[in-house]
Amino acid sequence: MERLPGFRDFYPEPLPTPDAWSAAARQFIFDTWREVARRYGFAEYDGPPLEPTELYTVKSGDEILGQLYNFTDKGERSVALRPEMTPTLARMVAAHERGYKKPVKWFAIPQLFRYERQQKGRLREHFQFNADIIGEADLAADAELIALLIDTLRAFGLTREDFVIRLSSRQAWQEFFSKRCADSAKAYDFFQAVDKLERETPEVSEAKFAALGIAYREVTEFVAASAPTPELEWLLNNLAARGLRDFVRVDYQVIRGLAYYTGPVFEAFDAKGEFRAIAGGGRYDNLVKLISGGKVNLPALGFGMGDVVLLELLKARGKLPSLRRTLDAVVLVEDETLRADSLALVQGLRDAGLAVDFALTPAKPDKQWKRALELGARFTATLAGGAGEQKTVRVKELSTRTETVLDPAAAVAHLKAAGQRAG
Amino acid sequence: MERLPGFRDFYPEPLPTPDAWSAAARQFIFDTWREVARRYGFAEYDGPPLEPTELYTVKSGDEILGQLYNFTDKGERSVALRPEMTPTLARMVAAHERGYKKPVKWFAIPQLFRYERQQKGRLREHFQFNADIIGEADLAADAELIALLIDTLRAFGLTREDFVIRLSSRQAWQEFFSKRCADSAKAYDFFQAVDKLERETPEVSEAKFAALGIAYREVTEFVAASAPTPELEWLLNNLAARGLRDFVRVDYQVIRGLAYYTGPVFEAFDAKGEFRAIAGGGRYDNLVKLISGGKVNLPALGFGMGDVVLLELLKARGKLPSLRRTLDAVVLVEDETLRADSLALVQGLRDAGLAVDFALTPAKPDKQWKRALELGARFTATLAGGAGEQKTVRVKELSTRTETVLDPAAAVAHLKAAGQRAG
Repeated sequence: MERLPGFRDFYPEPLPTPDAWSAAARQFIFDTWREVARRYGFAEYDGPPLEPTELYTVKSGDEILGQLYNFTDKGERSVALRPEMTPTLARMVAAHERGYKKPVKWFAIPQLFRYERQQKGRLREHFQFNADIIGEADLAADAELIALLIDTLRAFGLTREDFVIRLSSRQAWQEFFSKRCADSAKAYDFFQAVDKLERETPEVSEAKFAALGIAYREVTEFVAASAPTPELEWLLNNLAARGLRDFVRVDYQVIRGLAYYTGPVFEAFDAKGEFRAIAGGGRYDNLVKLISGGKVNLPALGFGMGDVVLLELLKARGKLPSLRRTLDAVVLVEDETLRADSLALVQGLRDAGLAVDFALTPAKPDKQWKRALELGARFTATLAGGAGEQKTVRVKELSTRTETVLDPAAAVAHLKAAGQRAG
Repeated sequence: MERLPGFRDFYPEPLPTPDAWSAAARQFIFDTWREVARRYGFAEYDGPPLEPTELYTVKSGDEILGQLYNFTDKGERSVALRPEMTPTLARMVAAHERGYKKPVKWFAIPQLFRYERQQKGRLREHFQFNADIIGEADLAADAELIALLIDTLRAFGLTREDFVIRLSSRQAWQEFFSKRCADSAKAYDFFQAVDKLERETPEVSEAKFAALGIAYREVTEFVAASAPTPELEWLLNNLAARGLRDFVRVDYQVIRGLAYYTGPVFEAFDAKGEFRAIAGGGRYDNLVKLISGGKVNLPALGFGMGDVVLLELLKARGKLPSLRRTLDAVVLVEDETLRADSLALVQGLRDAGLAVDFALTPAKPDKQWKRALELGARFTATLAGGAGEQKTVRVKELSTRTETVLDPAAAVAHLKAAGQRAG
């Protein structure tokens, strides 16, 4: 039986095939995300992977249905696997708005799902680091969020040579549009056309803008000038105070496709432009009100960073650390009459917090030794001593091949200390 | 808009209402599971939350459909949200059987889904710690797995006074049945009747066994004798060598409802019997062969431990640690002319790995101070110094109210050292 197309299995290291997905790489990415969020004072939350379909259509309209894993459950509810986290966040915050001091700084690492029928071989799920600040209208929140995005990528060892944040303003585009087109219902078509500027031919773009009564040349000139609005200028100064200004470039080609952004928007790209966007986000001041049916009105902003492009980039830039499994010790059972004592030693070492393995069944010493090497053991520990004798433990460090003979309690203490030194 | 019935939102601490689910408690449980798995040399894997429905019906028959979140996707595939992890594990191992040395010791922390229409108020999802050993037929693997289960519960601070492992043997019941009933097709009905012994009246049980031609008295006598089979005796001796014998009690009332167990089976319960089973598992030597369509034949065993009963028990026994959020430092901005310098200080502290927050917008000093206390800050750091002057940082430890005045670089070093001491 096969897994579903577009879904991933995550295997332990070492991977069975080079193209297998690594559970350890995924955990490394999650751990790094959590660590940076902690430094920035963001608290973790999560919601259900299955939500009422309406949570997504209320925001994006029925057009999103074509991309959803949606179905009718046995209770006749229209439900969908979550395609993004922001509606769940807005729902959760609105439900307990009085329970938290504003601004709230929250993050989550949800698995998200999109059913796109046409794209064969493309993934239908990914994990995403979502960080949001809710309840702060001031641009200081935008700066804090962009700083978090930059430091998240820096935490993976990526530098200014590796990535850039392209900063733009939905508001600046809104003003550009309003001056040239009186029909506000067409704004979304305009944003979509701007969003696709980089991916479509000038002819196609020109036709789209012409349909809105807007000259293509004016659009490209606006992009080329890349003159920061006063709010973007303020943001850049705030980031400069943090020493992070050089990671950011004003680029009005970025606009974010989704309808609900209201202020500064941004995307992170690899500097060489080889990959799709690493992350994207912006301010969405009207969404909480929309999701809560008008009950709660809070300004908000956030970004999402997926695990797939990030992992590709880390691999391509050699920034993925060794994910080889290691053990603190392997207990070798060379004398089967000492198996019970060996089990006690294993237990003592594990009780001391050490990662320990051993051959479950009798095996030749050289086979056990080879297995210890394969498992990445730092030490082996081998019991000796006849019946009724005081037992001893031969502790061997594999990197240096140095041996020490100790009584069992001292061996546990010795290995525990070595484990703590290794961190 | 409301979340779906039976699903949970996980909120940051402090919780907005006493009955809200805590994201921090969930993370504490996950971290502890991962930590014990690491000590035992288990490697993490994961699979998709959505699988072909057939993966579950091949093992459990169509009767499981009534409990599944199953639907037809847009590609006309019959799919289901995973109700358990073992079929995915069997599928993954079978797909790359040659890629791993046996036995493999793997664990996962999947979210699992069951749609049970009749049970209002009951959860339809939970998270489960799944640990399995595949490719080892020897009872030594069963002992290792039960030891892991015991040590997982011990890692939460639970003791012999808090929980017990009830150990049984599917094989012993199989033999009991075969001696008394020639129709092997009825074995599953028999196992189901034994499984429900504790939850049904003697009259109901008696009728069920009578229908199979088996005397109820013989069943209860077999349970009461609780004479360990030779294999259970062997297991108990292995656990005794580890010092874990006293956590286990032979109890033939345990049989595990599912059809696919083949050897020793066990369940963990709270000692007072106030909660449902904390965990359960056993040997299932035929499942990998079944799932792989006969291609791969590997003996296997495993257990699952859900997060819901565990959390209830930890709360009831006072074993849940403080999950209050803490920060290493809050930077107070008492002089807005020093905001840019304060941002640099915040950045310096975060670059040093410290968890730091600050007021994004101007606020009165006493309000900032109060917020620092609410956020659980260990230190506050406040810049001082006029334009053109060398800036100083007043570092205050909140627990002792002691103050130190340092230059900014020294303040970062001081707080970094304090953060490392705190671990």
